[in-house]
Amino acid sequence: MHPILVVGSVAFDSIETPFGTASRVVGGAATYFGIAAAHFTDVRLVAVVGDDFDDERMQIFDGRRIDLTGLQRVAGDTFRWKGKYSYDLNDRETIYTFLNVFEEFRPTIPPDYRSSPFVFLGNIHPALQLDVLDQVESPRLVAADTMNYWIERAPDELRQVLTRIDALVINDAEARQLSGEANLVKAARAIQAMGPKLLIIKRGEHGVLMTRRDGFFAAPGLPLENVFDPTGAGDTFGGGFLGYLAGCAEVGDDTLARAVIAGSTMASFSVEAFGLDRLLAVTPEDVQQRFLEFKRLTHFEAL
Amino acid sequence: MHPILVVGSVAFDSIETPFGTASRVVGGAATYFGIAAAHFTDVRLVAVVGDDFDDERMQIFDGRRIDLTGLQRVAGDTFRWKGKYSYDLNDRETIYTFLNVFEEFRPTIPPDYRSSPFVFLGNIHPALQLDVLDQVESPRLVAADTMNYWIERAPDELRQVLTRIDALVINDAEARQLSGEANLVKAARAIQAMGPKLLIIKRGEHGVLMTRRDGFFAAPGLPLENVFDPTGAGDTFGGGFLGYLAGCAEVGDDTLARAVIAGSTMASFSVEAFGLDRLLAVTPEDVQQRFLEFKRLTHFEAL
Repeated sequence: MHPILVVGSVAFDSIETPFGTASRVVGGAATYFGIAAAHFTDVRLVAVVGDDFDDERMQIFDGRRIDLTGLQRVAGDTFRWKGKYSYDLNDRETIYTFLNVFEEFRPTIPPDYRSSPFVFLGNIHPALQLDVLDQVESPRLVAADTMNYWIERAPDELRQVLTRIDALVINDAEARQLSGEANLVKAARAIQAMGPKLLIIKRGEHGVLMTRRDGFFAAPGLPLENVFDPTGAGDTFGGGFLGYLAGCAEVGDDTLARAVIAGSTMASFSVEAFGLDRLLAVTPEDVQQRFLEFKRLTHFEAL
Repeated sequence: MHPILVVGSVAFDSIETPFGTASRVVGGAATYFGIAAAHFTDVRLVAVVGDDFDDERMQIFDGRRIDLTGLQRVAGDTFRWKGKYSYDLNDRETIYTFLNVFEEFRPTIPPDYRSSPFVFLGNIHPALQLDVLDQVESPRLVAADTMNYWIERAPDELRQVLTRIDALVINDAEARQLSGEANLVKAARAIQAMGPKLLIIKRGEHGVLMTRRDGFFAAPGLPLENVFDPTGAGDTFGGGFLGYLAGCAEVGDDTLARAVIAGSTMASFSVEAFGLDRLLAVTPEDVQQRFLEFKRLTHFEAL
C-alpha cells in the first residue's frame, strides 16, 4: 500500500438540479478525490481554503485516512462554484465561479509528502501542475486531470505536463478536443504519443474506457434509478481509481481493470445524493457489494 | 436450435458519410437481421422487393441459412432510402424515403413458417406486426423493434403489440420517448409494465443495456478504429442477439448475456465497411475471435 499525494481544489459548491438544490456545500476536486481514495489508501491533500472554511466544515475529513498537513487556511473566502443541471443531468451550466483564495494558490508540498509514490494532479492550471512535479521526488505513478479551459488557454504548459505524467484522466469530449480526433481509438493513440502511456476516458453515464497494452478495458455505467447530482463524479472516479491502484502491491493490467471498477463504484455512490452526502456514508461493505454488482452487470461466459 | 421468422424490409440504401458514399446498395432491416442471425440458426425471411431487385442482387443470400420462400417479388420499385451521417457518425439525416412496393406490403406468412419458435417483428407499422402475430402459432419467443415514428403515429396499435411480445429491442431515445421517463432504469420498468418482460436498449457506440431478473446486463461498444457506416448496426445487433438465442437449447440469464455479446459482435463488424460489405464476409472464426475481444474488453477479477 502506497500513499497518494493529491493537489487540487477544496470548494463551496451550490448546485441546482431538476430534483432540488444544495447551497454552499463542501465540494472541490481534491475533496471528492481524497474521500474516495481514502477508502483504499492514505491520502495527503494539498489545497487552500479561506477563513470561512470553519472547523465544522473541516469535520468531513475526520476519521478518514486523509492527512491535512498540506491544506492551507488563509485569509479570504473559499473557492465558490455554482452549477445548474439539465433535465437529464447530462449537461450543466456554470452559474458562477469565484476563485477567491484559490486565485493566489501556489501549491507547497510539505517535505514529508515529497517522496509520495503516487501523485494526482487535480484540474488546476498546468503551470501549477508543473510546479508540483518540480517538488516531488521520482514518484512511481503520476496521474493528472485537465479540462477544455486549459486545453484552449494553456496548451504549451499542458503539453509539458503531458510529457511528465504516466496517466491522464479526462472525459471523452476533452480527449477529442486535445487530440483533434473524433474517433476515440485514434484520439487515445494521439494522446499517448504526447506522453501519458495510460489514458482513462470518462464517459459520464456511459462509463469509462481505459487503454491497455493490447486494446482497451471498458466499464459501462451502473444503471441507477436515483441519480440526484453528478457533481464530483469524475473526481470521485479518479480517487477510487488511483486509490485502488495505490493500495495494490503492483500495477498491472489486472489491477488497472479492477481500479476502473473501484473508481466506477465510488462514482456510482457519489451521484446518488447531493454533494458529498452519499459518499461520506459509504462503508467498505457497500464498496464490496457494488463491486460485485459491476461484475454481475458485465460478465458472461465464453461462446 | 430453432428457426427464426423475421418480417421486415429489404431495401436499396444510399449512404453518405464523411468517409465516402455508397449508392443503391442492398440494405433493409430484415436483410441485416437475417444475415447476422443466419450465423447462428436457420432464418425464414418475409419481405417484399420490386422487380428491380434482380437475381444478381439476390445473390447476397446465397449459401446462407436463409429461406426466401416468404420473400415476395412484385411489380414496381424496391423500397429506397438515403441517409447522410454527421462528422462523428452519431447523427444522421434522412435525405429521402421511397416506400415504393413496401407501401402495399401485407406480410403473408407461408404455412411452413407459421410454427416458427422464434419470431422477430422488424420495424414496420404496428398494425402489420399485429397481422403477423395473428398468423403465427404460439411461438416460444417474440421480439420486436419499433421507432419514434410509430410511437408518435400509431400509439394504440403499438400498445397492442407490446402486450403480445416477449422482448422489445429499441434504442435509448425511443425507450425514453415510449416511457416518458428520462432515467433508463425507470424507463425500462415502465416499458416492462406495458408487456415485454425483456427489454434490450441499444445505445449506439455506447453499447447495449438489457434487463434481467435482478438488475441489468450491460455491454459497452467495442472501441473500433475504423467505423465507416453505422447503417443497419441496430438490425445486425438484433439478428446476432436473437439468432444466438434461437441457436441455444434454452433461454436463461446466461444465454441472454451471451446473446447480447453475439449481437454486439455482429454489429461491430457491420459498421466497419459500407452497407453489407463487411458483414457478408464474416466467418465463424471472426465471430469467435471478436467474442473473445469483448470478453477481454470487459472482464475483471473480484476485489
